[in-house]
Amino acid sequence: MYYIAVVGGSQCDSGLASLAEEVGAGIALRGGIVVCGGGGGVMEAASRGARAAGGMVLGILPGDDPRRGNPYLTLAVATGLGEARNAVIARTADALIAVGGEYGTLSEVALALKMGKPVIGLKTWKFEPPQRLETGIIHCETASGAVEAAWKAAGATARS
Amino acid sequence: MYYIAVVGGSQCDSGLASLAEEVGAGIALRGGIVVCGGGGGVMEAASRGARAAGGMVLGILPGDDPRRGNPYLTLAVATGLGEARNAVIARTADALIAVGGEYGTLSEVALALKMGKPVIGLKTWKFEPPQRLETGIIHCETASGAVEAAWKAAGATARS
Amino acid sequence: MYYIAVVGGSQCDSGLASLAEEVGAGIALRGGIVVCGGGGGVMEAASRGARAAGGMVLGILPGDDPRRGNPYLTLAVATGLGEARNAVIARTADALIAVGGEYGTLSEVALALKMGKPVIGLKTWKFEPPQRLETGIIHCETASGAVEAAWKAAGATARS
Amino acid sequence: MYYIAVVGGSQCDSGLASLAEEVGAGIALRGGIVVCGGGGGVMEAASRGARAAGGMVLGILPGDDPRRGNPYLTLAVATGLGEARNAVIARTADALIAVGGEYGTLSEVALALKMGKPVIGLKTWKFEPPQRLETGIIHCETASGAVEAAWKAAGATARS
Repeated sequence: MYYIAVVGGSQCDSGLASLAEEVGAGIALRGGIVVCGGGGGVMEAASRGARAAGGMVLGILPGDDPRRGNPYLTLAVATGLGEARNAVIARTADALIAVGGEYGTLSEVALALKMGKPVIGLKTWKFEPPQRLETGIIHCETASGAVEAAWKAAGATARS
Repeated sequence: MYYIAVVGGSQCDSGLASLAEEVGAGIALRGGIVVCGGGGGVMEAASRGARAAGGMVLGILPGDDPRRGNPYLTLAVATGLGEARNAVIARTADALIAVGGEYGTLSEVALALKMGKPVIGLKTWKFEPPQRLETGIIHCETASGAVEAAWKAAGATARS
Repeated sequence: MYYIAVVGGSQCDSGLASLAEEVGAGIALRGGIVVCGGGGGVMEAASRGARAAGGMVLGILPGDDPRRGNPYLTLAVATGLGEARNAVIARTADALIAVGGEYGTLSEVALALKMGKPVIGLKTWKFEPPQRLETGIIHCETASGAVEAAWKAAGATARS
Repeated sequence: MYYIAVVGGSQCDSGLASLAEEVGAGIALRGGIVVCGGGGGVMEAASRGARAAGGMVLGILPGDDPRRGNPYLTLAVATGLGEARNAVIARTADALIAVGGEYGTLSEVALALKMGKPVIGLKTWKFEPPQRLETGIIHCETASGAVEAAWKAAGATARS
């Protein structure tokens, strides 16, 4: 049972929402758990996709009330930690899929890579380090490709 | 749907384990979610009771691996925060039931009371403040009494 | 150079304020650093005492602005973590002195004891565990006695 | 009195170390406080520069021991939070200067930008968002240019 974080903006256009929904569904169909920040936009779309496919969604919220998340969360954690909750999302995940995103998403991607977790990107941040680094985002073009890549990579994390 | 935290030691005798198991089952039978630290002892007994009664259990772990919790967790969060995760447990809960416990439990009780959350006690810490305080632990004698008291009190928290 | 946390209510009467100020001064005169939550009441009195005696004060704030602390902080950290910052105070301290206090103080005392840090009490919480525990608060009657006890105990923590 | 975070790798070549040291000195000479993660590499160089110029350095460490930082910290916080401490660094800072860096640095840059804090870059990460964003890193070529830019930008943060 893999924990796959799906991260992205709390607002997004319909194209990203479709991608995120398909990603959420794909994770659920493989028996994985969708971890997310519990909010709207990409997070809500991925949650909706996962629940529609019969899966479970774990929302890790920045605020003080577990009922403030999107309506598709199976269970929610109210961390009360503000942006520091991004580290909790990355820590819990066996792999992370970034769909679009702004600075919060970039921080989750960076925290996950710092922790040695695999990160898959769909229409997300591109960056260039100041020096050569061994790992980085695996960019994919399709939701199904992203889920497959996350699955393959999560295996190594979950066994370690 | 209330989130009820059940807190107590990671090791406990069979008497406390029975109480915790009955508490977990009672929460689940009312349709509530058991929140706990995800470990052994009282946490594991409450988790086992909840799952046996068909309920869900959310484990909020101090460490880095969501698979390091007891085997009865529906979903687990690896906070990586050490003892600071005790604040996340208190924050997520609508009410908290303490069963026995050592210093970690006392910190969760105190954090919950600081946050204005109701706390129910079963064979747990007794304390005397240096000055008069308006609220405190509601001590109960039975698991069913504790669950009933938590339910009544959680309503006020969840609506606020 | 020991880090000694002084914890207590954000409001307090003049008797507790005098005690806290004397504690802060005593720590500074021994060359120690006062760690506190950065707020008013006992925290402010201890900070004032330490600064007047030429010492340094580290404020670890719950909120988002390092300038929201009392005016006697040498340096301030804005954790943005809410009550979870209580664990950061306990973690940083080699020993902790509790002066009076409400539930936030009780949580800091409990977190410190859970982490194996020595805790000294001045007119603070008294509590009775549900089972025998090896360590506990060392209750003192005077500020100078509390500082001396903290100093002796901090040595063991700082060397470990 | 501004809090300026200097972030970068815990190991770095002598060129980046020189830059970081000059940045630390520049902040101190303007009366600012250097905030850093408390470790080696860029953090240590910035700390050394600040102290040599008579300034103060606040180290915010990921681990459990305030004495595990570099030798140039005026005061140290042991957060015990692991990577989540990166959010505490960004939260405390009025502005952030990134010097080189790996994924931890990228996360601090992203968290600061998410919080609306100004970020100055010296030979650091370059990135391209998936959509247009209003703010971003201000890239500078020299240490003195970076400090000047941070100073100008920090004013707006500190007054807000």
